[in-house]
Amino acid sequence: MSEATVILQMICPDRSGLVSELAGWVAANGGNIRHADHHTDVGAGLFLSRIEWTLEGFGIPRQALPEAVCALAERLKGQVQLSFSDELPKVAILASKQSHCLFDLLWRVQSGELAMQVPLVIANHPDLEQLCRGFGVPFFCVPVTPVSKAEAELTILRLLEEHGIELVVLAKYMQVLSSGFLERFPDVINIHHSFLPAFKGAQPYHRAWERGVKLIGATAHYVTEDLDDGPIIEQTTVHVSHRDEVSDLIRKGRDTERLALARALRLHLRRQVMVYRGRTAVFA
Amino acid sequence: MSEATVILQMICPDRSGLVSELAGWVAANGGNIRHADHHTDVGAGLFLSRIEWTLEGFGIPRQALPEAVCALAERLKGQVQLSFSDELPKVAILASKQSHCLFDLLWRVQSGELAMQVPLVIANHPDLEQLCRGFGVPFFCVPVTPVSKAEAELTILRLLEEHGIELVVLAKYMQVLSSGFLERFPDVINIHHSFLPAFKGAQPYHRAWERGVKLIGATAHYVTEDLDDGPIIEQTTVHVSHRDEVSDLIRKGRDTERLALARALRLHLRRQVMVYRGRTAVFA
Amino acid sequence: MSEATVILQMICPDRSGLVSELAGWVAANGGNIRHADHHTDVGAGLFLSRIEWTLEGFGIPRQALPEAVCALAERLKGQVQLSFSDELPKVAILASKQSHCLFDLLWRVQSGELAMQVPLVIANHPDLEQLCRGFGVPFFCVPVTPVSKAEAELTILRLLEEHGIELVVLAKYMQVLSSGFLERFPDVINIHHSFLPAFKGAQPYHRAWERGVKLIGATAHYVTEDLDDGPIIEQTTVHVSHRDEVSDLIRKGRDTERLALARALRLHLRRQVMVYRGRTAVFA
Amino acid sequence: MSEATVILQMICPDRSGLVSELAGWVAANGGNIRHADHHTDVGAGLFLSRIEWTLEGFGIPRQALPEAVCALAERLKGQVQLSFSDELPKVAILASKQSHCLFDLLWRVQSGELAMQVPLVIANHPDLEQLCRGFGVPFFCVPVTPVSKAEAELTILRLLEEHGIELVVLAKYMQVLSSGFLERFPDVINIHHSFLPAFKGAQPYHRAWERGVKLIGATAHYVTEDLDDGPIIEQTTVHVSHRDEVSDLIRKGRDTERLALARALRLHLRRQVMVYRGRTAVFA
Repeated sequence: MSEATVILQMICPDRSGLVSELAGWVAANGGNIRHADHHTDVGAGLFLSRIEWTLEGFGIPRQALPEAVCALAERLKGQVQLSFSDELPKVAILASKQSHCLFDLLWRVQSGELAMQVPLVIANHPDLEQLCRGFGVPFFCVPVTPVSKAEAELTILRLLEEHGIELVVLAKYMQVLSSGFLERFPDVINIHHSFLPAFKGAQPYHRAWERGVKLIGATAHYVTEDLDDGPIIEQTTVHVSHRDEVSDLIRKGRDTERLALARALRLHLRRQVMVYRGRTAVFA
Repeated sequence: MSEATVILQMICPDRSGLVSELAGWVAANGGNIRHADHHTDVGAGLFLSRIEWTLEGFGIPRQALPEAVCALAERLKGQVQLSFSDELPKVAILASKQSHCLFDLLWRVQSGELAMQVPLVIANHPDLEQLCRGFGVPFFCVPVTPVSKAEAELTILRLLEEHGIELVVLAKYMQVLSSGFLERFPDVINIHHSFLPAFKGAQPYHRAWERGVKLIGATAHYVTEDLDDGPIIEQTTVHVSHRDEVSDLIRKGRDTERLALARALRLHLRRQVMVYRGRTAVFA
Repeated sequence: MSEATVILQMICPDRSGLVSELAGWVAANGGNIRHADHHTDVGAGLFLSRIEWTLEGFGIPRQALPEAVCALAERLKGQVQLSFSDELPKVAILASKQSHCLFDLLWRVQSGELAMQVPLVIANHPDLEQLCRGFGVPFFCVPVTPVSKAEAELTILRLLEEHGIELVVLAKYMQVLSSGFLERFPDVINIHHSFLPAFKGAQPYHRAWERGVKLIGATAHYVTEDLDDGPIIEQTTVHVSHRDEVSDLIRKGRDTERLALARALRLHLRRQVMVYRGRTAVFA
Repeated sequence: MSEATVILQMICPDRSGLVSELAGWVAANGGNIRHADHHTDVGAGLFLSRIEWTLEGFGIPRQALPEAVCALAERLKGQVQLSFSDELPKVAILASKQSHCLFDLLWRVQSGELAMQVPLVIANHPDLEQLCRGFGVPFFCVPVTPVSKAEAELTILRLLEEHGIELVVLAKYMQVLSSGFLERFPDVINIHHSFLPAFKGAQPYHRAWERGVKLIGATAHYVTEDLDDGPIIEQTTVHVSHRDEVSDLIRKGRDTERLALARALRLHLRRQVMVYRGRTAVFA
């Protein structure tokens, strides 16, 4: 279970022989493939591949691997991402006042379900400081007002840089990140409290109640400039009835939100998600 | 299971003592209540009640009941609907070319799951005639072209009238009914192939694929003038993955569509659905 | 949402007029019914009713209500339970080493989802002390060995008594309570990590993996002398695949366990569960 | 969608380089891989692989492929199964009196969802003859009594042989096939009306009701000598409540049964199921 592995994610133009070429390259270097998953998007003419093999005994030394896979990608005219299962990515969690997603994520990190480090939590309200302290995670409060927003984002960017953050998770952070922010830090996962594309934007539970839907949902997705339009990683739903008030939708929603976010994040951390053309392939 | 019952559905302004008043009225007339379900919409100030009791031995004769419940409703300043479980409503099914919902409904009628009569099926294409014949159900083909639409709707209305139809079910009828039609025949249930309000309108599966959602759904709802905006009765979903093409979404969707439609129709036929303010209370 | 209510749960032999009699009694005393739910088990000849009405303005004073409802129950030859929504039951949580259910419950209490007090947590291992401290909940470690079990149970019973506990929740407490314990303290809810009656007893996830099932589940139930045979309150499932090892089943199971337990406990606390003949009616 | 493919399913002892060896063999013969899926059962030391590639242009002619893949399997000391997507397997459906699964399967064959031929339906009761006639499928009634069972099985085996049947589907065939039958014809898929291993054997819905479960299920599995113990392909569940009588469980069960059976059969027909050690790997 804990043996270190190498994970290669490749997207390239589709043609014959790609599975063999990739698997052959791993085998030629003495790699023992643990998982191999591929997908061809026929319409897009693209081939997507995720290969995971045992690090120990592999012919190419760890530090030489980035160069080697780049050469491989060049040969296939593709894009590649290389990861090692024993490297814990540094992830910052952004939150506001609600605790359910933050709590859930910190508990999963602590219990070993989510293979990542959390060097810091940033919130625009002070409410969750105590919670973070309980988990031994540094907490930074960066208030946001319409006037201070640009400055606040700069503060956040600086904190991310100082802590070497690779990924930001918005765990009910109720602020919209500017396009300027995303240009400088594009790797962001968000949880939206509706089954997108239904109820994009604000107050989805109120609008769901107004519409009289019989199920509500949650969507974990990568953040892009167009609000709530980013590539979807995971969606969950839960049934509601006429007896449920808006407050019940919010309560039921908390459970489905944290499940969707936790699952999406785990898939991301295990490098099981590949993004292309505004969508994801999830090799689960 | 088969004992005949009376079903009373009442909506009236909320106040103290309504449950007692309704149950007391039934008891005073010697009725044995089998089911009693109530809901108060606090925001709207409305009380909704569905009471079902055994017909046999009830003090008010069957033919006098309509007048009696109207008097009751007047006293409560409410609206009432009276039904008898041993009366099979006459339901017309409208379809186009796809067979899955029609097949499913006819099978459920035949097997006794749906307590209704189907005096006729109407379609704007001839494809499903054979299917209907297999179930012994008269089939009428009423083609619709942009030019002939008004005339076609008149033909349909005439057929509904001739057959004493009380409810129309759109089982993948791919035509939009005009507001003129709905004014003359408002009792229509439709199945839409998305979890509304996502993907209203045409081609929901194609748009779901484009958006890269991880679940698709179906919505059974009453038809109103505003397309796909009617009161929702039932919604179902099913997971999809990046491996699913549009054709797979359509295939998976068929199963979830027919389930949603069959459940909604059963709820309607058992008088478990109450509509108010653009939404439904479902006493299941 | 926060207006205090009275909740009456009645089980009695079925006969005509019971709904009217109960609702009439509430109305005669000036009560405004907020929820009324009934069920007739025809085979058992039993009538079950749950009625909830506003406390304020009710004609019978709070302290006189127990006697009044007992008189009512006697008249109907039934059993009655009376509760007030503004009374927070004292609940003890028993755990062992695993944190997921305990964490989840304490968070839900803190966030107001579960209307109860937790005067203490008892565990047979010391691991969860820190967690409890974070929530400000007293923690008692009562180790259990085959030799010390009887004594340990006496210690637990004493703690329950000292703290005025009304309900015990086994949040992954990996010890079987003796029949002697249950005789003295019968109100216990347990979470079992399988969809009962499949995989009763020990190691359900290992056995589920061995059997090659495609879904695993969790069951929240009242504890009876016969292990895992008590009345079921809630069951949940989650899909698994051949790729899932036993450790994955355990991981996925944690999410479905805590959901089942939290839902069951909420239903119990809101007095929506009625137990009879080894089963439950859940008025949700 | 309709391009013919070759499907190779291989199980062999695990070792390094297998993915490369298999993919390399396909590539060396000019095959264009469309899907490649692998699984290593570490505990069992087994490697399972399913590879699908385009038939057109493949270097080894169709009629020479069986010999070629046998040689490949021998080299890997494995077991192999070879299939072509353009060959429609001949499947016999066995039924008794209930129509829901039979109806569903015949409709799915007719609509193109299930890529198979149905040369005949066999039932131990005459009730479903009319239904089969509607689909143009020959119907054979082979009554079974305790006395005639052995003889009836011989008649069925003869019918299977005469029609060149490769797979038998038990669509609510309420007879247990003898071990002698299974020895002579082992390829049988059954639908059991419970989430196995709960409620093995007779009357699962009655026993589920007795136990007071909150969900019921269905299990599609390969048939083995030990009743209801065969490798599971697919399981589905549906929620039930205290309001559901046994007849409601049976009704709700019909929907979940036919879904489980149809999905399992589709997976089998597309050669996405591999059986080993009493369990299945499902490459979906």
